[in-house]
Amino acid sequence: MEDSMASEMDMGPIRPQNFLFACELKAAKEFKFNPDENGSEHQLSLRTVCVDGSTKDELHVVEVEGLNAEGEQIKATLAALKPSVHPTVSLGGFEITPPVVFRLKKGSGPIHISGQHLVALDNDMSSDEDDED
Amino acid sequence: MEDSMASEMDMGPIRPQNFLFACELKAAKEFKFNPDENGSEHQLSLRTVCVDGSTKDELHVVEVEGLNAEGEQIKATLAALKPSVHPTVSLGGFEITPPVVFRLKKGSGPIHISGQHLVALDNDMSSDEDDED
Amino acid sequence: MEDSMASEMDMGPIRPQNFLFACELKAAKEFKFNPDENGSEHQLSLRTVCVDGSTKDELHVVEVEGLNAEGEQIKATLAALKPSVHPTVSLGGFEITPPVVFRLKKGSGPIHISGQHLVALDNDMSSDEDDED
Amino acid sequence: MEDSMASEMDMGPIRPQNFLFACELKAAKEFKFNPDENGSEHQLSLRTVCVDGSTKDELHVVEVEGLNAEGEQIKATLAALKPSVHPTVSLGGFEITPPVVFRLKKGSGPIHISGQHLVALDNDMSSDEDDED
Amino acid sequence: MEDSMASEMDMGPIRPQNFLFACELKAAKEFKFNPDENGSEHQLSLRTVCVDGSTKDELHVVEVEGLNAEGEQIKATLAALKPSVHPTVSLGGFEITPPVVFRLKKGSGPIHISGQHLVALDNDMSSDEDDED
Repeated sequence: MEDSMASEMDMGPIRPQNFLFACELKAAKEFKFNPDENGSEHQLSLRTVCVDGSTKDELHVVEVEGLNAEGEQIKATLAALKPSVHPTVSLGGFEITPPVVFRLKKGSGPIHISGQHLVALDNDMSSDEDDED
Repeated sequence: MEDSMASEMDMGPIRPQNFLFACELKAAKEFKFNPDENGSEHQLSLRTVCVDGSTKDELHVVEVEGLNAEGEQIKATLAALKPSVHPTVSLGGFEITPPVVFRLKKGSGPIHISGQHLVALDNDMSSDEDDED
Repeated sequence: MEDSMASEMDMGPIRPQNFLFACELKAAKEFKFNPDENGSEHQLSLRTVCVDGSTKDELHVVEVEGLNAEGEQIKATLAALKPSVHPTVSLGGFEITPPVVFRLKKGSGPIHISGQHLVALDNDMSSDEDDED
Repeated sequence: MEDSMASEMDMGPIRPQNFLFACELKAAKEFKFNPDENGSEHQLSLRTVCVDGSTKDELHVVEVEGLNAEGEQIKATLAALKPSVHPTVSLGGFEITPPVVFRLKKGSGPIHISGQHLVALDNDMSSDEDDED
Repeated sequence: MEDSMASEMDMGPIRPQNFLFACELKAAKEFKFNPDENGSEHQLSLRTVCVDGSTKDELHVVEVEGLNAEGEQIKATLAALKPSVHPTVSLGGFEITPPVVFRLKKGSGPIHISGQHLVALDNDMSSDEDDED
């Protein structure tokens, strides 16, 4: 009951499925990630933030909005990047629990975020299944 | 039944074998990775994307195509790199479940991807083996 | 009794909850992180340090103050970054046990730190709960 | 029988010993890593590739040769680096199973690779030991 | 008996305590890390190497000396960095087993290393304790 969503290290006995995650950000195009739960647990493991060939050569700042431990909606600055200086930022598996919103705090984009979307059956449901085995 | 392919953290009691993965991308040369399953589970853990001495000094953008959690084929922009600015991008173990296709979205290459190819016996098969021990 | 706070790898059977962590540093604005324990264990897993569009183009040096293994308060230099050269530093999951203080050792900021705040029930409490199941 | 060498995540109940690994590459000096097995399992976890003060300011490309999942000897391009642009590449724990050979595909070096050499007793042997405890 | 010190993944049932590690290197100031064992196991998980505001703008090369798997004292080149080009190197959790010595192979510093110092009770001792619970 205390932990509706586990961290990367602790999805434990339930093996999550691993899917591709992609999102594109532009000045007026934020990206909401809020998968339907349906008895499943969802987690993002963010891997890279990068520009593409059409991104203007200016500083871009990427922000993510999600829940802190007090249950408040907060904004974290995830990465700053510029095509001619630092075209890709590697996040190395930043685990974020949905619902979250990604947006450009500065810059017109496009900026791309890639990562893994991990989906696990809910604890209680999978425990039940284990009991039936 | 719920998880045909586990994430990095959860290949669990079955110890996967670890092999070298390499791929070279050029403008007209995409790379498909779709190993024959044969009762095994396959996963890529991508480590680096880099140029070599013959890569033209222009921005290169690498794209990967795979399945999202809704079962749709999607494209994620993996990395942007340029020989004179950012010749290597470290991905730190980006776990991707095949089948996947890698290609250059921009740039003529060659661009190289390196990583680990993890192979594990299928759950059910290995459970049977465990029972026989 | 010997381990009041576990490392990332060893939060073990207790699955910690994963929340977003964000902090902003300026020349005269340090950030103290000392969550109320209330029978819970807290850990930070730091992910990125970056500039934003209003950060002056000079070298910024970020320092963290916490406990070493001898129980002494020490200062570690976490990252050096400059908007025009290295706008984002990826920390890849630097695990830090609170209480800690972040501050700028050099530069006027703003500098942003993002990461994960992991919260787990205390060992003994969760063991008790397990016994009651 | 199916897994002669485990991946990082799955050395499982057997705790591997962790040693320092270092190698230096020059134009005509490749490095072979093929430890004597003697009932032990060996794995490299590569951490950094970097130049030193005597490295000529030109692009260096590092290659590793090892086995793919089909049992073929393949070459992967590990990193590209140049003293004045990108003097260190962080690999973040690239797990490679010996035997492997490292060499410079381009550049005269010296280039340095650092990492961890993990050594675990063979499965069957350590199981026997556990039985005797 | 075979593994006096476990790797990051395998500190296993014993949850290590996580402390802050910091060290400063100058031309004539090496840093020895050799904690008193006292029935505990110690490991470093190195996170960043960086310059500060007083570091001269020249290439700095950091070296670590420790034991390889043959029990020999070896030197590994850990990172190369320069304030105006690459002010911070992220190591992503380079696990090193003490005793080790860090020093500058080139450059006058100061250069800072940050990381985690993991401390676990010795296997046998903690097993005894578990029995008494």
